[in-house]
Amino acid sequence: MNSSGDTIRTERTSLRRKQERGAYDRKTVNSILDDGFVCHMAFVDHGQPLTLPTIYGRDGDRLLIHGSRAGRMLRTAASGLRVCVTVTLLDGLVLARSARMHSVNYRSVVIVATAVEIFDPVEKTLALRHILEHVLPGRWEEVRPPTTAELKETSVLQLPIKEGSAKIRKGPPIQVPLDSEYRVWSGEVPLKMIASDPIADARAADGVLIPSHLDHFLSRWAPAVR
Amino acid sequence: MNSSGDTIRTERTSLRRKQERGAYDRKTVNSILDDGFVCHMAFVDHGQPLTLPTIYGRDGDRLLIHGSRAGRMLRTAASGLRVCVTVTLLDGLVLARSARMHSVNYRSVVIVATAVEIFDPVEKTLALRHILEHVLPGRWEEVRPPTTAELKETSVLQLPIKEGSAKIRKGPPIQVPLDSEYRVWSGEVPLKMIASDPIADARAADGVLIPSHLDHFLSRWAPAVR
Repeated sequence: MNSSGDTIRTERTSLRRKQERGAYDRKTVNSILDDGFVCHMAFVDHGQPLTLPTIYGRDGDRLLIHGSRAGRMLRTAASGLRVCVTVTLLDGLVLARSARMHSVNYRSVVIVATAVEIFDPVEKTLALRHILEHVLPGRWEEVRPPTTAELKETSVLQLPIKEGSAKIRKGPPIQVPLDSEYRVWSGEVPLKMIASDPIADARAADGVLIPSHLDHFLSRWAPAVR
Repeated sequence: MNSSGDTIRTERTSLRRKQERGAYDRKTVNSILDDGFVCHMAFVDHGQPLTLPTIYGRDGDRLLIHGSRAGRMLRTAASGLRVCVTVTLLDGLVLARSARMHSVNYRSVVIVATAVEIFDPVEKTLALRHILEHVLPGRWEEVRPPTTAELKETSVLQLPIKEGSAKIRKGPPIQVPLDSEYRVWSGEVPLKMIASDPIADARAADGVLIPSHLDHFLSRWAPAVR
């Protein structure tokens, strides 16, 4: 384990190759976590490693994951097994003149930790708030909060953001001398996630407008739509 | 293991909850695999489950994954450990009037398998071709193929697409009676990955135009750009 609060680097999470792509400082790690919607959580279920997608939230140095109490992922992870949570943001294709030098531009964070279930209803509600606010800031205040029965249906896990690594690749392809005689186009094709026009629920009450929190979301994720 | 070639359903990969979201037929599974750029592969490394992002290809009923021979993921998986490969396509946010009923629309595939390394140089080259062609069809023919030395630096794994499941959520939020008095906007916010204008490598040869395979890619992924 690391002794400093400013890095999530440990011996086993230090990149062994392409070290120039690695980062371990909280600012970089948090900025990648905060830009993602979905993580993949790995755990071992009866000897079989599994990795399943889920949304998540962050509260300072904690990652928060929720799911149905009946679901395999939360049931297994809550029993104290080790987990790995990975967030990957794909930023583009990297097209080289040789097959070998093709790559993708991306930002990713890998966190290894032991998951702990949150049982206290107040803590659990706060964690669910962090998860919804991570996806859509401002939403929680305007929607119906969970009932006691709903809270019981849901499991929430927390994991410390204490051990792991971030990895970033950006920029043009690497070109090796052998490639120079191949006159094929090389460069980057940027990729990004965008939102398009919201589709109102057919059962929505008449006269209910798009709320400011959604407007704010769209100004970031769908600049062309607004 | 299942006995039919048309389904990847087995007892342990059958969804235990929300079964209406599950699919096991090859057509659905392949269409999701073919729409993704990045998968997450889980494996166990010295007792710690890890899930790492990587690109992949598909050749019929085989998934193909490559990476540096020196990398942790390929080195560990090649030694015969069980792996899980998951592809997740995020299609939108689902905004309900209650916190509990928020969700995301998505398509995902989870494959569990034992990875086998490909050593034969001809087979390996073909596998690398499938991986590059998965990302950008038509690219392989125009770029420099791998040298013998480059082939040796790269490990390629194949996994049978034989056991797993697909999961799809689409459509508006579920509304429960308690939600009706909350007059907040509800509905879907579609999300999708798009490409933007390619950035030519500064070292690109003069007069090298965007090739037709990239034009074709952009007509699908960047309709507004073309």
